[in-house]
Amino acid sequence: MLSLTSVLIAVVCVLIVWIFKNEDRSVERRKGEARAGSQARPWVDEDLKDSTDLQQVEEDADEWQESEESVEHILFSHTRYPEEEMVTRSQEFYELLNKRRSVRFISNEQVPMEVIENVVKTAGTAPSGAHTEPWTFVVVKDPDMKHKIREIIEEEERINYLKRMGQRWVTDLKKIRTNWIKEYLDTAPVLILIFKQVHGFTANGKRKVHYYNEISVSIACGILLAALQNAGLVTVTTTPLNCGPRLRVLLSRPTNEKLLLLLPVGYPSKEATVPDFRRKPLDQVMVTV
Amino acid sequence: MLSLTSVLIAVVCVLIVWIFKNEDRSVERRKGEARAGSQARPWVDEDLKDSTDLQQVEEDADEWQESEESVEHILFSHTRYPEEEMVTRSQEFYELLNKRRSVRFISNEQVPMEVIENVVKTAGTAPSGAHTEPWTFVVVKDPDMKHKIREIIEEEERINYLKRMGQRWVTDLKKIRTNWIKEYLDTAPVLILIFKQVHGFTANGKRKVHYYNEISVSIACGILLAALQNAGLVTVTTTPLNCGPRLRVLLSRPTNEKLLLLLPVGYPSKEATVPDFRRKPLDQVMVTV
Repeated sequence: MLSLTSVLIAVVCVLIVWIFKNEDRSVERRKGEARAGSQARPWVDEDLKDSTDLQQVEEDADEWQESEESVEHILFSHTRYPEEEMVTRSQEFYELLNKRRSVRFISNEQVPMEVIENVVKTAGTAPSGAHTEPWTFVVVKDPDMKHKIREIIEEEERINYLKRMGQRWVTDLKKIRTNWIKEYLDTAPVLILIFKQVHGFTANGKRKVHYYNEISVSIACGILLAALQNAGLVTVTTTPLNCGPRLRVLLSRPTNEKLLLLLPVGYPSKEATVPDFRRKPLDQVMVTV
Repeated sequence: MLSLTSVLIAVVCVLIVWIFKNEDRSVERRKGEARAGSQARPWVDEDLKDSTDLQQVEEDADEWQESEESVEHILFSHTRYPEEEMVTRSQEFYELLNKRRSVRFISNEQVPMEVIENVVKTAGTAPSGAHTEPWTFVVVKDPDMKHKIREIIEEEERINYLKRMGQRWVTDLKKIRTNWIKEYLDTAPVLILIFKQVHGFTANGKRKVHYYNEISVSIACGILLAALQNAGLVTVTTTPLNCGPRLRVLLSRPTNEKLLLLLPVGYPSKEATVPDFRRKPLDQVMVTV
C-alpha cells in the first residue's frame, strides 16, 4: 500500500514534468512565429515557412543539376568574339550597369508593355536547380490593385517601424529619410511581384521539391534588374516584410508560391534623388588565387 | 519516513524525465546537423549555419533599405531611350541571354583576365540589403588550387551520391549522365567562387547583420551570369553541397564568409553538349493584373 502510494506519486510527477516540458518545447517552436502586436494576423505565420527545407535539400539533392534523365543531349552552339571585342563588350556592359541605382521616385508615365514582356522573358532565361524554373512574375498595372498592394505594405511597414523595430530603431528613425509611406506603389506604372515556387507538383499530384528555389529566383531577379537597366527603366529592390501571404492572397497566387521581391518599375520622376553612395572598389570585392 | 521515501522517489523521477527530455531535445537539435557516414567531418556542421537568421531579420530589419543616414542625396541622372529603341534593346538583350546554357564541358584555353575583372565589377553593381555589398568573388587561376578544389568537391560529391542520396537516387543513378567526376574544375581556366558575407563588423568590432545577404549575393550572381554571357564566356551554376567550409578554409576566407556558388568559367570545349531543354513560354511565367 505504501509503496503503491510512492509509485503513484512518481507516476504523477513524471506525467507533470512530461506535459510541462512538451508545452515548453511547443512554446519554443512557436517563438519563431511570434510577432509583436496583439491582434491576430493569421497570414503572418506563413511567412516563416517560406524558405526551402534545408534538411530536405540535404537528403535529396546532390547539386545544382538539371535533371538530365531521358533528355537528349545536343551540340552546344556558341558565339565567340575576338578578345578585344570581349574586353570592349564587358567594359561597356559594366558601364551600363554601373549607372543603375535604386530609385524610389518613379513617375506615373506609362511604359511600353512589350518592354516589360521582354525583360520578364529575359529573367526567365536564368538557370535553376534541376531546371525547375520556379518563378512567377506578377505584373500589376491595374491602379486599384496597385493601391490595394500599397495599403497592405504601408500597414505592415507602419507596424514594423512602430512596434517591431525596438528602441534602437525608434531613436534612429529621425536619421532615416524613408519611412513607411511608399508613394511609388501608386505612381509606378507597373509593379512586378516576383514569387518563388517553393515546391511544384508531380504528374500524380505529389509535392516536388524545388531545390535552391530562393537562389534560383534571386538569380533570375538579378538578370531582370540588368534587363530593366538595359531598357532604360528604373526600379528599387524591395522585400516587403511580412506582406508576402496577404499579397499572395490578394493576387490569387497558389500556396506553393511565396513572395520574394517587389519591383516598382517605370521612369524616374523629374526630381528623383538617390543617396550619394560609392561602390566598393574591385580589390575589396575580388580576390585572385 | 515513509512519505520521505515517496518524495525521494518523486524527485528522482522528475530528474530522470527532465534529463531525458532535455537529451531528447538536444538530439532533435542535432538532427538537422546529422550526416550519413560515420567519419568525423568537423567542417560539415558549419554548412547549416549559412543562412541569415530569419528571426534576427524579423527583429532588426524593416525592408531592403539602403542605410541612408547621414548620406547626402543627389539628383539621379537617367539615360532615357525612345520607345522603339527600348523595345529593340530589350528584345536584343533577351535574344542574347536566351542563348545562355549551363555548359559542363569547358576548354582549357585561357581567357583575358581583363574580361574577368569587368564581369566581377559588373556583378558588384548589384543592389544589396542596406547597401552592405556582402559578396566576395574568389577568382582561382592557379592549377594546383583548382585541382585541390576539385578533390574536395569530388570527394564530397561521391559521398553525396553513394551515401546520402538514398535508394531512390541510387536506382536513378543510371539515368543521370553526370556523376561525381567534375573535369571542368581542372580544365576551366578560371573558377569563380562566390562567397556571401553573412555578417560584417562595426567599427568597434561587433557583428553587423547583413540583411538578406543570400538574396543580395544571388542577385549579384544573376548579373554576373548576364555579364559572362555578354562577353562570350560560358559557365555552369553549381552549389557544391557540404564543400563550403572546406573550400573556405582552403582559400583562407574568414568565417563570416560562406560559399554560395561556384562558377567554372571559360570557352566551351569543341564537343560540348547540353541537354535539349526548352524554357517555359511567357504565359507560364508571367501573370498580368
